[in-house]
Amino acid sequence: MKKGIFITIEGGEGAGKSTLIEQLSNTMVQKGVPFLTTREPGGIPIAEQIRSVILDRGNVSMDARTEALLYAAARRQHLVEKVVPALAEGRHVICDRFVDSSLAYQGYARGLGMDEVWNINSFAIQELMPDMTIYMDVSPEVGLSRIAGAADREVNRLDLEKRSFHEKVREGYMQLLQNHADRMVRINAEQSSEMVFREVLTAIERRFAGFFATDVKS
Amino acid sequence: MKKGIFITIEGGEGAGKSTLIEQLSNTMVQKGVPFLTTREPGGIPIAEQIRSVILDRGNVSMDARTEALLYAAARRQHLVEKVVPALAEGRHVICDRFVDSSLAYQGYARGLGMDEVWNINSFAIQELMPDMTIYMDVSPEVGLSRIAGAADREVNRLDLEKRSFHEKVREGYMQLLQNHADRMVRINAEQSSEMVFREVLTAIERRFAGFFATDVKS
Repeated sequence: MKKGIFITIEGGEGAGKSTLIEQLSNTMVQKGVPFLTTREPGGIPIAEQIRSVILDRGNVSMDARTEALLYAAARRQHLVEKVVPALAEGRHVICDRFVDSSLAYQGYARGLGMDEVWNINSFAIQELMPDMTIYMDVSPEVGLSRIAGAADREVNRLDLEKRSFHEKVREGYMQLLQNHADRMVRINAEQSSEMVFREVLTAIERRFAGFFATDVKS
Repeated sequence: MKKGIFITIEGGEGAGKSTLIEQLSNTMVQKGVPFLTTREPGGIPIAEQIRSVILDRGNVSMDARTEALLYAAARRQHLVEKVVPALAEGRHVICDRFVDSSLAYQGYARGLGMDEVWNINSFAIQELMPDMTIYMDVSPEVGLSRIAGAADREVNRLDLEKRSFHEKVREGYMQLLQNHADRMVRINAEQSSEMVFREVLTAIERRFAGFFATDVKS
């Protein structure tokens, strides 16, 4: 069934994921490549409802395992309602965060264990792993200072986490990179956004030669 | 830490779980045994929010795996906020439905697989399995006709399932009984509520000799 290529973009806060995704979008629009950019919960009502439970600032008593299960639930619904249909239509899908976020944040940084968090996510996504994952690597110093500078950004519960937490998140991603070198590519995201974009284009084209060529003849 | 005894009551629709729990409550009140009766989401705000997503009649596109993950999430939060503290205080806990419901309904009847649903529930409950589970067995004919007779009951999405589904749920519970004979007891719930109650009392006292004796000296 699956015909499009599924790429996920990962990274800590302020890594520049949104900027990268905009650049990729513009390129695919210019070249006429059919694609979808998305992020969980992605306008899927069930996933939006789940997300609002996770991000509710009143829910301070939320257990870390409850949170991990909710992320997996929202992921599942977004995947079946939005990602899978787009791939089946032959569109490439670029998704802002996916399973590696849960592994790095909940599994590693919150100490639930990557294997345990993988178990529930494996239930959620079944065989549908990304074809490629781009990890936008920035130090927490750089990432968090970029966020602090963006005044229009809504502050939610997760932003209140301490910097040491973000250090751990980065360590988690580093472990994932080591264990999934076939799927994951690290990009130095402290460079200029132009440099980052160029490196990402090269990495994608090296992996998928025809990625930026339209394959819909209409 | 755990000092109370944790008993779960399972069964299909119309099995008489509520009546049984009321009878058990009355007995424990009379004997001065410290206890808690509860059911998920049990007034725990996070679990209530999750439950309202599951039961929202508008959510017809909900995937079965999303649903199973949401049940596991609500279970986790109810467990850590309500069940565990009560047990730690030395109270017995009687819970209306628990992990076996997910195994029978989602795992078996919806076809997700009992092992797979067990994986996510094992993440949710960790080592905290019930000390004893009472399965109230009724045929779908009897159970569903009892429900149809109860006019004050709100009809939700799950009640709209077909009868063949309830047959499968019962098959799922039968498998669980076979595999967990040490923990689960089957009660013929087509008998009068007095007979059911007497059998349940006997089963509990056989398993936990001092269950209906107060162990709080104040």
